[in-house]
Amino acid sequence: MASRSDAPAPRSTATSARHADARPADPQWPTAITRIEPNTIQVRGYPVDELMGRLSFAEAIYLILRGELPTPSIGKLFEAVLVSSLDHGVTPPSTLAARNVATTGAPIRASVAAGVLGFGAFHGGDIESCMRFLQSGLARVREGSSYDDVAREMADGCLAQGRIPSGFGHRIHTFDPRAVRLLQLAQELELEGEHVRLVRAIERALRARPDAEQRAIPLNVDGAIAAVCGDMGFDPSLANPLFIIARVPGLIAHACEERERFPPMRQIDPTDHRYDGPPCRRLPASRK
Amino acid sequence: MASRSDAPAPRSTATSARHADARPADPQWPTAITRIEPNTIQVRGYPVDELMGRLSFAEAIYLILRGELPTPSIGKLFEAVLVSSLDHGVTPPSTLAARNVATTGAPIRASVAAGVLGFGAFHGGDIESCMRFLQSGLARVREGSSYDDVAREMADGCLAQGRIPSGFGHRIHTFDPRAVRLLQLAQELELEGEHVRLVRAIERALRARPDAEQRAIPLNVDGAIAAVCGDMGFDPSLANPLFIIARVPGLIAHACEERERFPPMRQIDPTDHRYDGPPCRRLPASRK
Amino acid sequence: MASRSDAPAPRSTATSARHADARPADPQWPTAITRIEPNTIQVRGYPVDELMGRLSFAEAIYLILRGELPTPSIGKLFEAVLVSSLDHGVTPPSTLAARNVATTGAPIRASVAAGVLGFGAFHGGDIESCMRFLQSGLARVREGSSYDDVAREMADGCLAQGRIPSGFGHRIHTFDPRAVRLLQLAQELELEGEHVRLVRAIERALRARPDAEQRAIPLNVDGAIAAVCGDMGFDPSLANPLFIIARVPGLIAHACEERERFPPMRQIDPTDHRYDGPPCRRLPASRK
Amino acid sequence: MASRSDAPAPRSTATSARHADARPADPQWPTAITRIEPNTIQVRGYPVDELMGRLSFAEAIYLILRGELPTPSIGKLFEAVLVSSLDHGVTPPSTLAARNVATTGAPIRASVAAGVLGFGAFHGGDIESCMRFLQSGLARVREGSSYDDVAREMADGCLAQGRIPSGFGHRIHTFDPRAVRLLQLAQELELEGEHVRLVRAIERALRARPDAEQRAIPLNVDGAIAAVCGDMGFDPSLANPLFIIARVPGLIAHACEERERFPPMRQIDPTDHRYDGPPCRRLPASRK
Repeated sequence: MASRSDAPAPRSTATSARHADARPADPQWPTAITRIEPNTIQVRGYPVDELMGRLSFAEAIYLILRGELPTPSIGKLFEAVLVSSLDHGVTPPSTLAARNVATTGAPIRASVAAGVLGFGAFHGGDIESCMRFLQSGLARVREGSSYDDVAREMADGCLAQGRIPSGFGHRIHTFDPRAVRLLQLAQELELEGEHVRLVRAIERALRARPDAEQRAIPLNVDGAIAAVCGDMGFDPSLANPLFIIARVPGLIAHACEERERFPPMRQIDPTDHRYDGPPCRRLPASRK
Repeated sequence: MASRSDAPAPRSTATSARHADARPADPQWPTAITRIEPNTIQVRGYPVDELMGRLSFAEAIYLILRGELPTPSIGKLFEAVLVSSLDHGVTPPSTLAARNVATTGAPIRASVAAGVLGFGAFHGGDIESCMRFLQSGLARVREGSSYDDVAREMADGCLAQGRIPSGFGHRIHTFDPRAVRLLQLAQELELEGEHVRLVRAIERALRARPDAEQRAIPLNVDGAIAAVCGDMGFDPSLANPLFIIARVPGLIAHACEERERFPPMRQIDPTDHRYDGPPCRRLPASRK
Repeated sequence: MASRSDAPAPRSTATSARHADARPADPQWPTAITRIEPNTIQVRGYPVDELMGRLSFAEAIYLILRGELPTPSIGKLFEAVLVSSLDHGVTPPSTLAARNVATTGAPIRASVAAGVLGFGAFHGGDIESCMRFLQSGLARVREGSSYDDVAREMADGCLAQGRIPSGFGHRIHTFDPRAVRLLQLAQELELEGEHVRLVRAIERALRARPDAEQRAIPLNVDGAIAAVCGDMGFDPSLANPLFIIARVPGLIAHACEERERFPPMRQIDPTDHRYDGPPCRRLPASRK
Repeated sequence: MASRSDAPAPRSTATSARHADARPADPQWPTAITRIEPNTIQVRGYPVDELMGRLSFAEAIYLILRGELPTPSIGKLFEAVLVSSLDHGVTPPSTLAARNVATTGAPIRASVAAGVLGFGAFHGGDIESCMRFLQSGLARVREGSSYDDVAREMADGCLAQGRIPSGFGHRIHTFDPRAVRLLQLAQELELEGEHVRLVRAIERALRARPDAEQRAIPLNVDGAIAAVCGDMGFDPSLANPLFIIARVPGLIAHACEERERFPPMRQIDPTDHRYDGPPCRRLPASRK
């Protein structure tokens, strides 16, 4: 389902003049994000130098987007959301766009821009679709239906139309370890709310299908992110931007690898690659 | 000074055929970043679900770019580098590019792409220039000159040509609190190395000038980032990408504000704005 | 009205697997645009070297987009459509995005990319909106209503909601000379069809308003382009792409001027510029 | 050879303040491209409505970039330059970047932006390299050497280093029909100048090699474009922009085909495609 954030935000159009050309400038137009004056840079009121060394990068991202500091628990869950979407290998079209630009000798920023443009409706936009999907279900829950009844309706409704519910299913994975881990963290951090409850109910409804054993339809990372972000109070319009923030380092890693390991103007076949990085390894005990 | 990373990476050109068209595909081309198989996503060998909740987003960024986990100290300093560059208000041309795209009703990712394209030689590229500048000086230190002698040569050499040494000076700030804080953190975390030593020596040389009181030439955040990144072992070619990673959330905040607070097709005057966000506030004691 | 081409094209989704990851590659996937073989390049079947010197650039653009050669009349009208949208000065946000990227020292192609991203729903997307608007009216004409009745309904319907009909009105111009000229050419070339008839009827309806003298609502260039493109058989989804093709040279001229005439990292105030180019001049008689 | 236009244009840096932040705005900054006033749009002084129907799109492009009208002969040759570079099939990395963005459901303009970012040093930048290469040779001709002597030096110099002279050779074609046609047109239009003379001399020098029969090194389209653009007085910095203008319609055709013929999120294998468009056909006699 196409992301509604691709539509321009609704604005007042109470004007008779055609806005085919730009409006006159607003005098002293206001901005509430960052204050710059001699010797001071404040982000949402906090001096940046005070944030450095005390807030993590992810907590600072939360601050600049939401306007307020996250609680420590929300900060941890938010870190995990970003880490979950860091990269997904060479096959996503956005990564291929970035690598194809890199192979022409363009600077890394050009690869990043090209890759980011690929986070469209069908790719990176699923989180927002899923958030809106969950919110439509939650509206019915708030009107009095049970989570399980609503979940069954949502699941059956989609399947009846030959569609997988938004946030579920995966081409490659029969269970998505990132989704499992994210919901586990939400539970540990006591941040489960109505979105997570509904998503777990949809999981149950999907597992209760007669053909569930032949055809697994697991919660995927987009659905898990949608659920925890909904419960952290994010507006659906921020879903795709969060995915952008998380994936940019992945795009950069791929663009750098393309430049460093391969000759320019290479034909990049997305079906004919192999992994030659480190074998599977675990974090040292000190990190667990 | 233009960033050398705008030049394509040197590659073997021992070919007779003109590469005006693309080379044939390499069979089974290798990639070492992320391994995707059913039910497993491993970034540089580490399962992503294991990283979630244990590595911060910044530590995961370090991992995917450098291939190995950062030490806890390096992780903290790296967080601070990214936080330092999160945003710089409405006036940078990259932010204006992002806001101008946003006012046309384009999706946030289009604003991000446009803004990222503005991180060119003169903007976001200064960190790399400064790293190379420092490395040229360090070459002379390793040959036997003292830090102070080299620093004096570097400072005097630039000033004699009517230029400010790379990484120093600022249009607005007489001292850059982000630079001060970053070097302070490097000291606290015992991560000061030869780059930081050289940058401090250049600071001393600039302060010793006869006209130093009339014209302050402080270390700026680009110089501080260059120094600590050099001592963390980053290659200069990663400087501009790190700036991209740090600034993308700032671009997103500005694009969102443009969409939410203003009508579309607005004439954005970068000289006629005012800050109406929260007043200066400090982190709660629990965060210090 | 937001351009519907911002929504992904409808595709079959009769699949159970989530397309969050990419589909497997299609073997021998087909392309019908350009054939490349040793010593031959054929665009839609025509050898490019044969087109060179015989087709104009605009006629070749028509060929590659539509798949067939335009008639000479359509070719001439199509040239005029593209010329009409070549540039509109420094104030459009897309041009400002391009100039802001240029002032950072980025290559021209980065400015072009940033500017193109600004051709969104409210800017460059109006042509498509207007084509769909006209087509909805033409559906009623084909059912038996007169052009004037349908035009009156369309005009009154919009005005009653406080909106200007799509393709009409302008912030700056009380009549748009490009719109006048385009319809004149359509008439001279005998290419007026139902779209042009309807647009002229809407013009008449708007001029017949009681308050028409106080508040001119002329046909603007987007409306004229929508009409003639509709009558040339273009699908509305090609409207924004045609605008891109036409405006790219304008973006390039602005990016070049920014680089050549101004120092880098300039604050570009869109409200405080003046024109210092050639005074108004006419084509030599040989060209008329 | 990397395009020097990737380096920022040299500007005065006689300032003590670091331009890490933007300069103050220039009051009433001048622009010489397009004049916009009520009811008039003038491009380089010419009212756009007057140009419509009298100048071709390519002639108008020449006007906006160069500031003056082309002569009819130059106009024709310029059309041919643009037509020559319209498209080169599915394999260029820029086209693949565009198609990969299109398959994610992004709007056409996002595909165009991504594709344009791929016109880097090794792709689309060859024309500028070749123009500078020719100009270095012409400097020696103006000092008194013969075209043939200079050509031999240039050819031998490159071959001795294992490189093909810029503008010559091709992976696929043993002769490039577009290059042949372009020089033929230059001759017919009596627009051959020193650049074309030199390029023909280099052709002769390459054909005179002992191993010329085993290994053809033909003039390619980039070399031909470089020669005729040099003789039309274009600055080398405009070479890459002209390629952008010419190729944008090709990128659009590919993005549209991707959206219309294929499901979203497709794995695009650049090595496994086939052409299914019209068979080879010739222009009707009326067009020759």
